[in-house]
Amino acid sequence: MHVVDAIPRIRHRTFDALELDCGRTLSPVTIEYETYGKLNAAKDNAILLLHALSGSAHAAFTNDRGEHGWWEDFIGPGRALDTDRYFVICSNVLGGCSGSSGPGSVDPTTGRPYGLNFPVITVGDMVRAQKHLVAHLGIETLLSVIGGSLGGMQALQWAVDYPNLVQSIVVLAAAKRLSAQAIAFNEVGRQAIMSDPHWCQGDYYGRTPPDAGLALARMIGHITYLSEEAMHEKFGRALKQTNSYHYSFSEDFEVASYLHYKGNKFVERFDANSYLYITKAMDYFDLPDLSSIKAKLLIISFSSDWLFPPVQQRALVRSLRRRNKDVTYCEVQSWRGHDAFLLEVESLTELISGFLDNVSR
Amino acid sequence: MHVVDAIPRIRHRTFDALELDCGRTLSPVTIEYETYGKLNAAKDNAILLLHALSGSAHAAFTNDRGEHGWWEDFIGPGRALDTDRYFVICSNVLGGCSGSSGPGSVDPTTGRPYGLNFPVITVGDMVRAQKHLVAHLGIETLLSVIGGSLGGMQALQWAVDYPNLVQSIVVLAAAKRLSAQAIAFNEVGRQAIMSDPHWCQGDYYGRTPPDAGLALARMIGHITYLSEEAMHEKFGRALKQTNSYHYSFSEDFEVASYLHYKGNKFVERFDANSYLYITKAMDYFDLPDLSSIKAKLLIISFSSDWLFPPVQQRALVRSLRRRNKDVTYCEVQSWRGHDAFLLEVESLTELISGFLDNVSR
Repeated sequence: MHVVDAIPRIRHRTFDALELDCGRTLSPVTIEYETYGKLNAAKDNAILLLHALSGSAHAAFTNDRGEHGWWEDFIGPGRALDTDRYFVICSNVLGGCSGSSGPGSVDPTTGRPYGLNFPVITVGDMVRAQKHLVAHLGIETLLSVIGGSLGGMQALQWAVDYPNLVQSIVVLAAAKRLSAQAIAFNEVGRQAIMSDPHWCQGDYYGRTPPDAGLALARMIGHITYLSEEAMHEKFGRALKQTNSYHYSFSEDFEVASYLHYKGNKFVERFDANSYLYITKAMDYFDLPDLSSIKAKLLIISFSSDWLFPPVQQRALVRSLRRRNKDVTYCEVQSWRGHDAFLLEVESLTELISGFLDNVSR
Repeated sequence: MHVVDAIPRIRHRTFDALELDCGRTLSPVTIEYETYGKLNAAKDNAILLLHALSGSAHAAFTNDRGEHGWWEDFIGPGRALDTDRYFVICSNVLGGCSGSSGPGSVDPTTGRPYGLNFPVITVGDMVRAQKHLVAHLGIETLLSVIGGSLGGMQALQWAVDYPNLVQSIVVLAAAKRLSAQAIAFNEVGRQAIMSDPHWCQGDYYGRTPPDAGLALARMIGHITYLSEEAMHEKFGRALKQTNSYHYSFSEDFEVASYLHYKGNKFVERFDANSYLYITKAMDYFDLPDLSSIKAKLLIISFSSDWLFPPVQQRALVRSLRRRNKDVTYCEVQSWRGHDAFLLEVESLTELISGFLDNVSR
């Protein structure tokens, strides 16, 4: 299925200015995006796909740098987001570090990277930037807005902020606000970065970046993305290489090596300041009023997700039903934890395909 | 009840040498301990109380430095550990930093603190050191060995290693081995310390210690000690001082301030290297063979403890029952998470008092 003309081109769109929730205006604003499939003549087959904390615009296929798309098993002919039928847009979030404007972008007033002078952004700001992109592409209604984790939070924000533009949303492993525990994990992740002496108050561009702090933040994050059961299944108490303890502070256990590996891989592709900004946007996300929503909703939780546990999605579904919203809820049985929204291809493909069929009918 | 003569004296006992599981011998070995109540003439009323990761020998009453005991609500006349009836001994663990030999102790071969030259110790080593102390006090059988978390792991080790010395054990919020997830949390805590440039491979004594790293490790730990429900009850999404977001990387949320406060308090009283050694001992703890146990056992879990979840204690109880051990199990309903073993005074007092009555009868 990976035919050559399916390889997406990376595109950028730069807008003059974006008003932000903090009261500041960001100017200019660049949004990187990829598209898959074709916009039809009626322009009614567009799906906006939204990534999680560490994602990018590169959702499908393998790009010219050999990188796999973060949701590639879900996008393509005959897949959940069927590119023979739908036009899929995925953009890098505002505040990110994969092409869209973020703390590593050049501040035109100084000619140097923003660092902490980049404004603190919100999920609402991310969505407002996407709205500009969608309008630029000539799209007046979105068939669906789909995302997991932070992506699911953005999908909810879309449904609340632009009820007339969104026919449906699919929210995976997300909630209408973070729990105190999730805020706490974000705080310690940020603290890991900000405690790294290379962080230099965010002004490290062109110098040694705070890799140790960012790797540690990612290690902490990874614990929350896996369920206890997933960790048990993958690693248990298995020892690395030998059958006996080292009696040293090396990594005796496979689970520790895995976390170190994940942390060290992450710093190759992610900017520490973006980690600060995006986690802060997640902390701030809070949707007390869902009354404006007109979209059909598909809410999906995963039984072993303890970062966004099913109890949160059930509460969200109850509050939507009280307001007579058209909401479908499914708790997928999975041992994979929060990461299940990236991994449970079979069950999610069935759920999402069916939902989109129904919406586009 | 806090009569003057109840204030414990801090005592030390130094032994010539201790054989360790790693194959090295530690010499000399000092164990700091406190006692409450009186050893009776028959010497059959002694209870050994064992502390958790960050505890000390100071379990009861308020000492002459004004410090509260870590289990003071459970110790005293008429309490769970009734000092009118029992002689309670609490010692600081080997590897600790509150009087017992640890990485901050002076290495007699160099005249300088051990740092990372201190041997990597195990729960078995901790218990072997306690065994020397108990023998020194002239006690041949312990009425009970009691502890929570790491203390509960030590109690299990006591029952396995010294079956003829231990009449009973009480294991609170512990397990016969750590889960992969708990090992992962310990690893990121250690990584936080070891990433701090002030850590200097553990050789920081007399210089600036790695306070930022230790505080971060403690913050991570605190998330695991509280349940999601406890965090929700205590903090929810409450903001600090103001009703609006700061749009900065200051601590907007109460839960973040709480973690920072806990982290910063901890560094005043704890040594970062001891944190490394004690968490490593917890990772290494693994009791595959329980067959030697002769003690009566009381195993207590807490419904909202996700660091040592009830499913682990139930598995432990099942394997004990298969071996026809005399085990009583109770899951205490509590929203306080792992910390419940320090906080659920009423229900634990009833359970432990009744159990000890039964054992001492």
